[in-house]
Amino acid sequence: MAISMLRVATISCCHSQQPLNHSIYSSLFTFDETSKKNKKKMAVSCSSPSSELNPVIKSDVSFSVGTYLIPHPKKVDKGGEDAFFVSNYNGGVVAVADGVSGWAEEDVDPSLFPRELMANASNFVGDEEVNYDPQILIRKAHAATSSTGSATVIVAMLEKNGILKIANVGDCGLRAIRNGNVIFSTSPQEHYFDCPFQLSSERVGQTYLDAAVSSVELIEGDTIVVGSDGLFDNVFDHEIVSTIVRHRNVAEAAKALANLASNHALDSNFDSPYSLEARSRGFEPPLWKKILGMKLTGGKIDDITVVVGEVVSL
Amino acid sequence: MAISMLRVATISCCHSQQPLNHSIYSSLFTFDETSKKNKKKMAVSCSSPSSELNPVIKSDVSFSVGTYLIPHPKKVDKGGEDAFFVSNYNGGVVAVADGVSGWAEEDVDPSLFPRELMANASNFVGDEEVNYDPQILIRKAHAATSSTGSATVIVAMLEKNGILKIANVGDCGLRAIRNGNVIFSTSPQEHYFDCPFQLSSERVGQTYLDAAVSSVELIEGDTIVVGSDGLFDNVFDHEIVSTIVRHRNVAEAAKALANLASNHALDSNFDSPYSLEARSRGFEPPLWKKILGMKLTGGKIDDITVVVGEVVSL
Repeated sequence: MAISMLRVATISCCHSQQPLNHSIYSSLFTFDETSKKNKKKMAVSCSSPSSELNPVIKSDVSFSVGTYLIPHPKKVDKGGEDAFFVSNYNGGVVAVADGVSGWAEEDVDPSLFPRELMANASNFVGDEEVNYDPQILIRKAHAATSSTGSATVIVAMLEKNGILKIANVGDCGLRAIRNGNVIFSTSPQEHYFDCPFQLSSERVGQTYLDAAVSSVELIEGDTIVVGSDGLFDNVFDHEIVSTIVRHRNVAEAAKALANLASNHALDSNFDSPYSLEARSRGFEPPLWKKILGMKLTGGKIDDITVVVGEVVSL
Repeated sequence: MAISMLRVATISCCHSQQPLNHSIYSSLFTFDETSKKNKKKMAVSCSSPSSELNPVIKSDVSFSVGTYLIPHPKKVDKGGEDAFFVSNYNGGVVAVADGVSGWAEEDVDPSLFPRELMANASNFVGDEEVNYDPQILIRKAHAATSSTGSATVIVAMLEKNGILKIANVGDCGLRAIRNGNVIFSTSPQEHYFDCPFQLSSERVGQTYLDAAVSSVELIEGDTIVVGSDGLFDNVFDHEIVSTIVRHRNVAEAAKALANLASNHALDSNFDSPYSLEARSRGFEPPLWKKILGMKLTGGKIDDITVVVGEVVSL
């Protein structure tokens, strides 16, 4: 039986953020797909008209970029240990590197390696051998880096046709957002919890061959958010989306996201993505907190780098 | 200062799953990146030797596939409302569709649309116009589907060079796993919580143009897990990874994942990905549960489809 036109006319309800009522929970107090059939049916009757009726006209695109970096509170004097670069080469290049802090115990400044790595990556962006391949850019930048240290790194390169190529080593991250939805997300790579893959000055580290290589097709109006783990450990994806939706200016969006991450990082009661992940891995709060019935919560204090890129037509 | 060779010799520690001690939590009881510098340093000293020393030799690849479907307990008689197909065309094709249950209230069997959609997709796999593009496959399969109804859908097509192309409409999902790490993950698309994007027989639904289109480079030994939301709402990524690591046989892995999802779905105390997401969106438990200090927990009862594909050399 076809859905009536009356329902089709109720298009506006679909994008409201009204909370669902408790009828979605079954009498067994488990979530039951059948008990929320009305909610799913809403999609039948309330979704926006088929975009096939208004096909996207593709034109050449590039990034409009805003950036913001908040150093770890104890590392403000030297600007933290994150580094990044942004280039307008081709459709635009965004790269973030996060220095591994453990090197400080070896009397090595952990910021040196990621900064040189990013400087080298910036130099090689137009290199013929790189051929606009982010994995090869990582290989050449890594090979040219002589500082001692190690870093996680992500490189994202936009082609003018809208294809964004990504190479990622470790736990920096990228989200692509379209119409209030995350349509693409990188996955952190790690040896174990809190021990990410990383490029290193030493032979024991990872290389470009260990990068996760992926791509996603972007269109005008899409937004990417690239950052160090200081962002993604402290801010949920739905918070990233709502912040992007609220701030159309990319510089303001980057600043707002970095400030949100910083506020959450310093909030010992905030149930952050990092604390959720820790609990799901079986970590528990200190004994005194456990005795009081308190759970493991809190943000993660870290350097926070945020780059926001909006896809605009040329 | 260089890391000593002695540390390089301690390679084996890096892949053990030993829990971190509580020193990762700072005195403020927030997570502090500086307080876990030793953990990050472990990666400097304990990671596996550079894979550049043992470059991956690329040969043509394809999928070895195992599948398992557990219908919603109330829909067992008709086999549930999920549908899928697997093809060995080129490097291999995996597709899953999840029928929208709300159609039952319109006296429409919600399983008809996804089943016809999958049958049509299967027929068009080798179509010249499709040209091994999953988004075009969705377009043609959708256009050929005459049943009334709607469905979420994901199509993943492996090229023999290891590039996996993915088109996704809604909240089916895919994870790519390499050496115990999720290296790639799709993102669900939704209008709002529990209201996913969906292809429909009606003009108000989404189309192939609304698909999130992405790709990831896979190598021999990688594993993909493709499923309906019945899997991903009930099983965390780290559980998917550990299940894949435990079961080298793809059929056994698919069965184990489906059973895990089913057990979690029926467990009203399990803190599922779905309940976590609901809480992060501000949903609360029924009042009586709230008064007793109980939180919103439970799995989500649903059809569960799991397809596991291991990348093998030809």
